[in-house]
Amino acid sequence: MKHLFFSFEGPDGAGKTTIVQMLERHLINRGFNVMATREPGGIEIAEQIRSILLNPNNKTMDARTEALLYAAARRQHLVEKIIPSLEEGKVVLCDRFIDSSLAYQGFARGLGVDEILSINQFAINGLMPTLTIYFDIDPKIGLERIGKNQKREVNRLDLEQLAFHERVRKGYLMLLEQFPKRMRKVDASQPIEKVFSDVVALLEPFLTNANEL
Amino acid sequence: MKHLFFSFEGPDGAGKTTIVQMLERHLINRGFNVMATREPGGIEIAEQIRSILLNPNNKTMDARTEALLYAAARRQHLVEKIIPSLEEGKVVLCDRFIDSSLAYQGFARGLGVDEILSINQFAINGLMPTLTIYFDIDPKIGLERIGKNQKREVNRLDLEQLAFHERVRKGYLMLLEQFPKRMRKVDASQPIEKVFSDVVALLEPFLTNANEL
Repeated sequence: MKHLFFSFEGPDGAGKTTIVQMLERHLINRGFNVMATREPGGIEIAEQIRSILLNPNNKTMDARTEALLYAAARRQHLVEKIIPSLEEGKVVLCDRFIDSSLAYQGFARGLGVDEILSINQFAINGLMPTLTIYFDIDPKIGLERIGKNQKREVNRLDLEQLAFHERVRKGYLMLLEQFPKRMRKVDASQPIEKVFSDVVALLEPFLTNANEL
Repeated sequence: MKHLFFSFEGPDGAGKTTIVQMLERHLINRGFNVMATREPGGIEIAEQIRSILLNPNNKTMDARTEALLYAAARRQHLVEKIIPSLEEGKVVLCDRFIDSSLAYQGFARGLGVDEILSINQFAINGLMPTLTIYFDIDPKIGLERIGKNQKREVNRLDLEQLAFHERVRKGYLMLLEQFPKRMRKVDASQPIEKVFSDVVALLEPFLTNANEL
């Protein structure tokens, strides 16, 4: 089956959510059926798994347990929401997918990109996105954007977060080098209209083909 | 670390639970500290995962989601219960471990033994049992043992179960061929005292070494 399945990656504060919303409207206006989602996406079993991950009492959760639970929630969301939408011919836009696990857990938390890829390949069973757009931004700017309404001094926790987010960015940039065909980068520090037109330009070859079918 | 970690595999009705209890008493009498367990083993996060697996409302659960959740529960039980016990020098007896996933999900449900092994290797991160004892029994006898108090005729469901349990047995026998060093088989159709003495004989070389240390 020829499908259009796009995932969007990058840190919080890079503008992914806004761009996905703009893109959804843009594609609908061009006559596409669109399904925009993010895990766990209202899928009951995936929500149950996510609630274990987010439960603040689960302080003893091991990093590998966490990675397996994310992969399990991803599988169920894929099976119950993404695959049926693709089978109905919809364009699927997914805010974060497999590469978030590779960058955050595999690279930044040090579990190993190959190992995290392996359990996620089991989870997605070959259903990779058609194309993945990475929103690249200096973590300082991303954190500033998130925190700009909180008027307070930068503290030690923010600095730790910064070091972590710099590792995450390094992870994404490494993935871009490793997977140049299936991943593309946009400069997310640009004005939102320019980020949007860059994203549309990257998706255009796939959308044009789809119209011709 | 030199550790004594034994797992026990085979169908329900083969006598695993009884033998593990007998073995626990036997080892305590010989002066060992023993920890007998089975997943999820009272570990809060593993119990939460198990409750998703057992929730009768979760009818749409995909087989791969299920396999990832079993691996996640295994990881957390290992980290919170098995590893600390081994570090205290206890002999660990575990009723079902990685080979249940290989035989049931990998082989009998057809997900692939290598793929299920891969996600479980991620989960256990090298901590394989010292030795695994497989309780071999004709599935007909195993099902009879379980159902002997239910006086009713054999129905279609029982026969489907039988075909499934025959595939499980075939899976275990294949694992025994594939891993002849780490797995041993006992004939579980024998009287329980004979099964027990066979198990003790198989563990003896490891126990004797431990006493000498």
